[in-house]
Order: sequence, then C-alpha cells, then structure tokens
Amino acid sequence: MKLLEDRIIKDGRVLSGDILKVDSFVNHMIDVELMANLAKEFYRLFENEGITKVLTIEASGIGIACLTALNFGVPVLFAKKSKSSNVSSDSYTVDIASYTHGNVNNVSVTKDYLTENDTVLIIDDFLATGNALLGLIDICTQAGAKVAGCGVVIEKAYQAGGELVRKRCRVEALARVASMGVDGSIHFAQ
Amino acid sequence: MKLLEDRIIKDGRVLSGDILKVDSFVNHMIDVELMANLAKEFYRLFENEGITKVLTIEASGIGIACLTALNFGVPVLFAKKSKSSNVSSDSYTVDIASYTHGNVNNVSVTKDYLTENDTVLIIDDFLATGNALLGLIDICTQAGAKVAGCGVVIEKAYQAGGELVRKRCRVEALARVASMGVDGSIHFAQ
Repeated sequence: MKLLEDRIIKDGRVLSGDILKVDSFVNHMIDVELMANLAKEFYRLFENEGITKVLTIEASGIGIACLTALNFGVPVLFAKKSKSSNVSSDSYTVDIASYTHGNVNNVSVTKDYLTENDTVLIIDDFLATGNALLGLIDICTQAGAKVAGCGVVIEKAYQAGGELVRKRCRVEALARVASMGVDGSIHFAQ
Repeated sequence: MKLLEDRIIKDGRVLSGDILKVDSFVNHMIDVELMANLAKEFYRLFENEGITKVLTIEASGIGIACLTALNFGVPVLFAKKSKSSNVSSDSYTVDIASYTHGNVNNVSVTKDYLTENDTVLIIDDFLATGNALLGLIDICTQAGAKVAGCGVVIEKAYQAGGELVRKRCRVEALARVASMGVDGSIHFAQ
C-alpha cells in the first residue's frame, strides 16, 4: 500500500539489531488518520469473509484493530499478556516469545468471548518471527473458531514468520519490507 | 451518559474485591460501536480546548483513545509500561502503582512526542485510585505540555481518585459509579 510505504520511508528509522522503528506513527504515537485508512484496506480485503470478531494482542495492535473492527461492525477482542485479578481463570492460553522484548508472555483470552461460532480476522502491527500471530491462531484453534486470515501493518518479509503463518491461513500485509540497509535505507517487496 | 450506564447495568458484573468487571465490552472484548459513541461525547466535551494530542496508557485505554483522537484529527500517544529495546532512553518516566494488578509499572513517553507546544486530552477506561491519570499528568508536566483535562469511561466515584485528579485538571467521566452492592447491584452518581 503506497500510502503506508511512503510514510515508512519518510518517518521509519532503521536501528541496529534489525529494528525498524515506526513509533512516531504506529506503535507509540499513533497516526489515527493513517490507521483509519489502513483499516479501510483491511475491510476491503476481508469484507466477504463473514468476520464476526477482530482478534489482536496487547498493546500496539489494539488501535488498528479497533479502527478495523469499526468497519466490520464487530467487536475487538485483545489477548492479554499478563493475568490480572479481574480476568477469569477460564481462559484459552498460549506462550508467545517476544523478539523485541526478549521475553516470553503467557497470553490469554477468556473462553466466553471466542467460540466455534466465530470467524476471526487477526490484526497486528508487525509480522516478523510470526510468534504472535501463530499464538493467536493457536488460541482460535483451541476455541474452535475459524480464522479468516491475518492482517498486518508491516511485514518483515525477509524473516521466516510470513512463510510460517501463510501455511496456516491467508495473510495480508500492507507493507512488506524486503530489506533494510546499514545506511538506513528501506526496500519493499513487490 | 445513559447509553453507557444502561450497558454497565446490563453487562457489568460486580466481583469480590470491589471489582467492576466490564471485560465483555470495555477492556478485553471491546464494543467498538459503543466506544465510537463515547468518543464522540469526549469530542463534544473538549472540542473547544485546542487539543493537539490524546494521551493514554497501555493497554485498555488505547481503543477508546484512538476513536477519540479520530474525532479531533490528532495523534494518540500511549505511555508504555515496560522498556522495550526499541524505545529511546530519552523518555519522560513515572512510576504508577496498579490496584488491579497489584504491582508498580515504570511508565514512559518518548520526549520527542510530547512538548510544551502540546495541549493534551488524557483518556483512560477507569478512574479509581487516580494513580494512572496522576502519572500521565506528571508526564505532561515534565514535558511542559498543557493538560486540557481527563476523559474517563467509568469512574468509581466512591474512591479517592476523582477528587485527587480534579485538583489538577478538569475530569469528565461518562459513567460515575456511586456504589456497588454485595447483591451485584450498581448505582450511579447524579
């Protein structure tokens, strides 16, 4: 999606450790008008799939998930990374390793909110290792829910995650980064 | 706001430990159409304040903050609860104790994204002890940013937070819970 690629070129920054920093418009400060445009594109891509719920994981997927769900007229469900005292123990859970944070989170969704009657669109900001999306697909499998596909804002197409997740379901990435140069350049896959 | 109070009566649940569980429509599953209506109300209340940024804290404030910011045509900035490897060390930080989770989080906002030129609307899902809002106000003070006020979805009006935060800035709560009965009843302040 050219609008997003142009913005990544303009405001994204390549840091050491293979980090694409987009926290000025995606995952710390959020350009909600840009996200609303991306959300419309997710709607266009999945509008005929009978989506009943948009599933994401806290925290940085929540904004784009809410704007996407508004187009579909369905609720957002966000998987929680830590057990709080007001989440039921009656949950679907999975362990997800985070590349960015270098830790493993136990991620959970309350069973009441995801069932075999659901057709789910999974939304997240990044696809790199695929761990987060695979974990969310696993939660849907536990619930017997159908996964219509995954919509991600940015895919690091040179990492293994995209191939792993595409073995499980349809994946639509609005920008696919093919490589990042040590000079800070960013190149997109066709 | 009657729409919200009616929904809290219908779907909210009172649990032991003074917990009002609204995770079927506010902070685990999110009814985005309801939130879009609440966001419009926040816009009506603060539209003449020259808001330049909506500030919230991860994770459950992000959805309502994004929908609110869309009305204002300004970005969302969400304070992060844990230091990740792609957040600059050049941040405003504050420690915030969480009643729900029983822990203390170091919360941070990157300095580049909040300045003395900003007029901030702080948005969160709950106001109880006031710790989260007071922490976000502190971050704005560190940045020299003006706080136009706080908009919260649900205030537990019988806890001390509302009074503490109102000493610092304007607070608008869309539902103010006056008391919760052991029988599960929920009563609202006038």
